[in-house]
Amino acid sequence: MEAYEILKDLAIILFFAKMFAVVAKHFKAPQVVGEIIAGLILGPCVLGIIQQTDFITEMAEIGVILLMFSAGLDTDLKELIKTGPIAFLIACFGVFVPLISGAVLYMAFYGFAPWGSEEFYKAVFTGTIMTATSVSITVASLQEMGKIKSKVGTTIVSAAIIDDVIGIIVLTFVIGFKDPESRPMLVLGKTVVFFILAIIGGFIVFKLFSILDKRYPHTRRIPIVSLAFCFTLSYVAEKYFGIADITGAYIAGIVLCNLSDNEYIERKMDVSSYMIFAPIFFASIGLKTSFDTMNGHFFIFCICFVIAALMAKIVGCGLISRACRYNWADSLKIGVGMMTRGEVALIISQKGLSAGLISADYFTAVILLILVSSIATPLILKLLYSKDSKNLESAGA
Amino acid sequence: MEAYEILKDLAIILFFAKMFAVVAKHFKAPQVVGEIIAGLILGPCVLGIIQQTDFITEMAEIGVILLMFSAGLDTDLKELIKTGPIAFLIACFGVFVPLISGAVLYMAFYGFAPWGSEEFYKAVFTGTIMTATSVSITVASLQEMGKIKSKVGTTIVSAAIIDDVIGIIVLTFVIGFKDPESRPMLVLGKTVVFFILAIIGGFIVFKLFSILDKRYPHTRRIPIVSLAFCFTLSYVAEKYFGIADITGAYIAGIVLCNLSDNEYIERKMDVSSYMIFAPIFFASIGLKTSFDTMNGHFFIFCICFVIAALMAKIVGCGLISRACRYNWADSLKIGVGMMTRGEVALIISQKGLSAGLISADYFTAVILLILVSSIATPLILKLLYSKDSKNLESAGA
Repeated sequence: MEAYEILKDLAIILFFAKMFAVVAKHFKAPQVVGEIIAGLILGPCVLGIIQQTDFITEMAEIGVILLMFSAGLDTDLKELIKTGPIAFLIACFGVFVPLISGAVLYMAFYGFAPWGSEEFYKAVFTGTIMTATSVSITVASLQEMGKIKSKVGTTIVSAAIIDDVIGIIVLTFVIGFKDPESRPMLVLGKTVVFFILAIIGGFIVFKLFSILDKRYPHTRRIPIVSLAFCFTLSYVAEKYFGIADITGAYIAGIVLCNLSDNEYIERKMDVSSYMIFAPIFFASIGLKTSFDTMNGHFFIFCICFVIAALMAKIVGCGLISRACRYNWADSLKIGVGMMTRGEVALIISQKGLSAGLISADYFTAVILLILVSSIATPLILKLLYSKDSKNLESAGA
Repeated sequence: MEAYEILKDLAIILFFAKMFAVVAKHFKAPQVVGEIIAGLILGPCVLGIIQQTDFITEMAEIGVILLMFSAGLDTDLKELIKTGPIAFLIACFGVFVPLISGAVLYMAFYGFAPWGSEEFYKAVFTGTIMTATSVSITVASLQEMGKIKSKVGTTIVSAAIIDDVIGIIVLTFVIGFKDPESRPMLVLGKTVVFFILAIIGGFIVFKLFSILDKRYPHTRRIPIVSLAFCFTLSYVAEKYFGIADITGAYIAGIVLCNLSDNEYIERKMDVSSYMIFAPIFFASIGLKTSFDTMNGHFFIFCICFVIAALMAKIVGCGLISRACRYNWADSLKIGVGMMTRGEVALIISQKGLSAGLISADYFTAVILLILVSSIATPLILKLLYSKDSKNLESAGA
């Protein structure tokens, strides 16, 4: 393929993603929903104009990393430390309630499986797929509404990050029972080492950046070197510690969030993001969707799978939030904010497929879950927040 | 390859490109020179840390397109129309003087070849490789010095664009004499049709954008849709008319250069460009360089090839500029500004290789030419401009 061939795809994706975003905005829906639907229509599901190429996958990867980096930069560190323990609790419930729901759902469809049997692991694995929240869509919606720095926003983002990490550990344990090659304790150890190194290394990097920032404030080198740091941490996290690259990007953002040029970096990052990368990322979610292997019985399973996965997060995260003294409205927001799933669910499914725990059909269910949650979450979040401001207005009047 | 693997390359390229750019700036050299040298050091020529992957090629392609789009947006349309005929003349001399120089050089090395012989076409083809100016490096240097809107700046950019088009036509004619499949008149016709369509279509697009711009000034949709338009025109130019995509991008910029939100678009474009794409483009020039096939006799040929190619542009474009009443200093600037070569020279070589007119060794000579001209042009241009301002200062004193 000649290099210029990518230009056609880029032009089509950018144009339609923006047009659908504008339409979404017109109907008071979040713009990301428009961009995902644009991808759905351009992709194999409807028109089939755009194929998911390596290039689009890579651009989308940069898109989601920029998004998480920006969320990290936008973090209020004090708020994060304050909400940290609660976020950890929410993350735990956000993993275990879906894990159990998925296992129960599997048994409801395919019969009860006794502890330790082959079928039992399949049931547990169905639950494992449901565990990992993908926070990018929620982050984008919260940014759009200007709520990312709020207490609820910080709680959701940090809980989702922790949830991802717990999800990966659970995955390794589940696979570990079937596959003697995988070493769960090693994974656990690596994760702990990563976070310790991130805290120590992050402190050193922050000091170095502070010096750079003081000597050359508002120069291009600051955001460019920051971006290089973000890419490095993302890469190292994924490659050497088995932790999602987006988690690395978020931590890179947190490391730099107290820099005095923080807002300058974020502004530059945001322009790069919304001009090219973010629309490609959101559209690529729609592009991935295809329902070729759907049939009657499996269709019902898919629907139940999606409902169970969404409800498990809302109930699990919502109830524990309420128990942690958030009010009902905020608890619901946290539950809804945690329900989005993304590429991590696909990666987990991939691992389950190669371990022989699930069949390829499952991908359809997972993709449906990603699609539904990606579209529903921003819509519901916006609804919940607009309800809030109405209540506030009537209280004020 | 996993998608996250690209992050390592990105981080390394961004970091070192920026560091070398800062060092270059410290020594009062243009920053692009630093970025090219960073690529040279990271690439197979020195350290061999970074390989030229598809992804980097594609990112670099977007980089050069953003650069040319931005140059187009920065055009003073009145100045362009005024300098148009002179630019055309300069372009003609900028093609034919190198064409003859290359042929003469070939004969000097490999013996005289009578008109119409196999060797004769090889000689002419050597000249053809030397014809196409690649204006991107010059554009970047002029932008860095704030001289792109000047009379000399406009002349160079428009001459280089026309020169590219003439170069492609010459290529088709030269190949056409050997290969009955290629139809030179068709290429000529297509080129004419492209420019007519670009003028008519450009006018319509400008009117549509003016309406959009008036209704929604300073909204993100303006730069995003502009970018989609730029990608579309680049793609259509290359795919359907055989005209370089960067020429399409430049014309897209010219179409929108009188928009009232012009500067807003350019600002957004520039951030996306300098944050990620442009450093990758400049570094990729260095990354491509490798001197594996070099030997004694051919080394001397390479050196002479580079010198002939550079001098031919300076002499050809410089003298005709002087004849068109530019003063000596400006004529020299135009000559130097026209001497950069880029990927078009490689593309032409590729065509010559498949037509059996040159051997693969030639690539080394062409790459050396690209490298030397990419580094020398910005340095000499900066020197010439700084001399100017010194003269101005002493005249003022």
